Amino acid sequence: MNRQRLNRVLKNMEEEHLKQILVTSTASVYYLTGYWVEPIERLLALYIQDNGKAILFGNELFDLVPREGIELVLHSDSDNPVADLTKVIKPGEIGIDKFWPSSFLINMMKLRQDVVPVPGSGPVDHARMLKDEEEIAQMRHASQINDMIMEKAMAKLQPGIRENEISMYIEKLYAANGGDHSPEGQIVSFGANAADPHHWSADSILKEGDGIVFDIFNPIKKYWCDMTRTVFFRKTSDEQRKVYETVKEANLAAEAMIRPGIPMSAIDLTARRIIEHAGYGKYFTHRLGHGCGLECHEIPDNSSSNHMLTQPGMIFSVEPGIYIPGETGVRIEDLVLVTEDGCEVLNAVSKDLKIIE
Amino acid sequence: MNRQRLNRVLKNMEEEHLKQILVTSTASVYYLTGYWVEPIERLLALYIQDNGKAILFGNELFDLVPREGIELVLHSDSDNPVADLTKVIKPGEIGIDKFWPSSFLINMMKLRQDVVPVPGSGPVDHARMLKDEEEIAQMRHASQINDMIMEKAMAKLQPGIRENEISMYIEKLYAANGGDHSPEGQIVSFGANAADPHHWSADSILKEGDGIVFDIFNPIKKYWCDMTRTVFFRKTSDEQRKVYETVKEANLAAEAMIRPGIPMSAIDLTARRIIEHAGYGKYFTHRLGHGCGLECHEIPDNSSSNHMLTQPGMIFSVEPGIYIPGETGVRIEDLVLVTEDGCEVLNAVSKDLKIIE
Repeated sequence: MNRQRLNRVLKNMEEEHLKQILVTSTASVYYLTGYWVEPIERLLALYIQDNGKAILFGNELFDLVPREGIELVLHSDSDNPVADLTKVIKPGEIGIDKFWPSSFLINMMKLRQDVVPVPGSGPVDHARMLKDEEEIAQMRHASQINDMIMEKAMAKLQPGIRENEISMYIEKLYAANGGDHSPEGQIVSFGANAADPHHWSADSILKEGDGIVFDIFNPIKKYWCDMTRTVFFRKTSDEQRKVYETVKEANLAAEAMIRPGIPMSAIDLTARRIIEHAGYGKYFTHRLGHGCGLECHEIPDNSSSNHMLTQPGMIFSVEPGIYIPGETGVRIEDLVLVTEDGCEVLNAVSKDLKIIE
Repeated sequence: MNRQRLNRVLKNMEEEHLKQILVTSTASVYYLTGYWVEPIERLLALYIQDNGKAILFGNELFDLVPREGIELVLHSDSDNPVADLTKVIKPGEIGIDKFWPSSFLINMMKLRQDVVPVPGSGPVDHARMLKDEEEIAQMRHASQINDMIMEKAMAKLQPGIRENEISMYIEKLYAANGGDHSPEGQIVSFGANAADPHHWSADSILKEGDGIVFDIFNPIKKYWCDMTRTVFFRKTSDEQRKVYETVKEANLAAEAMIRPGIPMSAIDLTARRIIEHAGYGKYFTHRLGHGCGLECHEIPDNSSSNHMLTQPGMIFSVEPGIYIPGETGVRIEDLVLVTEDGCEVLNAVSKDLKIIE
């Protein structure tokens, strides 16, 4: 059990007036205990009481080797998976992790009608939002590897190549560089395909004048990297250049303003105003970014509706984009760390307009 | 809305004494409506009443183009996602799909304290368990493609090749043959790695005398294929041959007995007895198989603890295996369809012992 992290969770529980919580997401359980378990349809739950008592409930089929400082209670497939848990929880409110399958919750409520479930992901999510030194080192490491892979992927552009050939090459590079097995593919979009921000790499063939969006991401020792660059093949139009420089300006201006104590919404709006001012406002169709850590998308939301203030230790993406349907799409994305007096951009690949020959 | 399937669900609701249910899994909503939505943290819920009334609640960001016969109620990210739903549901019990995130259920219960959530996946899961003609055609098609890919993957074995090279080649073949983007990798295990039934393909290099397990699976137009073959590279030991022939006998005996009206448990036990009789009982460490359809793993469970009787339209895997730690692993898996008078094996790749030169 990581006592330092547990103490932060206990402090957050106090602030949120929660006397007991059930932590069930794979990433949150790992954050506190060091066990990485994907339970699928089985039960995994870390019960935490405001007095510091913590018990991990899991299925005996999980790879839960006993460790110092963690109380384990295991059940088998033939047991009622919540039976042990219901013997321990206290009457009254219990905070429940947001994605816990309803079947377990219904089962728990049937056995313990004196217990009232309330939303309960906050204490751990808010602790995870502020990365500690160990996590910052891992996030830096993951993004350094991502920088290297981005350069190699760009070098692969050549006449006749297909999007999914590059996408598979990127996955191979992650596998060869300590990447965990990722549930995702990679986004490599040629030409007009890039106008769909979530285009899946397919068999489109590279041609002269294409813009190419590389949005590449993978967990490395459990912590995610996530970066986007857009380059052009052999030539660009005036419009492509204008779109590119607008997105770049939005990215740089947003990153330049990041320091502790500013509203997240102001960062999004700064980037958005630049894109609107250039006349492309309606083509920036998503939020500016998302928190990133043990999950690729976590808090803080980097959007105009998030009025939370920035704090040191936050890591999130800054990824403005312009998507003109049927024509072109440009996105530039870095991960950034809020430091004591400003921000550290975790990605180092150049953002200057690049034409690949 | 697929009325025929909805009618089967309504009939199952009656049998399970459920007057209203909430269907929230991606596969189950697709099964009934034809919409494939992966809602992640957003709300997707198909509400069904025992009178046949059905309403699909979703986020406006989903790609839900209106269709004849489906009532759509959309909400935006700034709405309470369960607000519309709570205006429609009736007091009393409501069946809840097993994986619905607890946060939605807690939110719903707060707004409607006159509603009692109970387990509610049964009516749709039991309808999906018995494949209709359209589904059977899609499952046959997916397994035919899998047969072709298996033969190509086997032909790729050569000195110096690595597991993950073959795994990536298989994924490329799926992509080129109508495979949907799959969240999984492929299992290609050389030599002693095969003794771990869930070994991830890594960078082990093929060597003479290795057994090679190919466990390959992917959705094709939403329906999964899933097959395993084990072959040997250049030579085999007497032990490998004995293990192989035992697993093959278990596979063939189990498939030979399948027809409507027998307990699922009897199929598992038939295979298990053969392996036990050969002295490898403790090395067959998992159930005989799993139902397969819109999800790779669904009901019916093909295990010794499932006493349900087989019915025409069930499709499940038959995959006995023997895993001797540090030495070798052999598994042979087909998908089978229970027919009116027997069973149809959906995979055609030979199961005779094969030595690749």
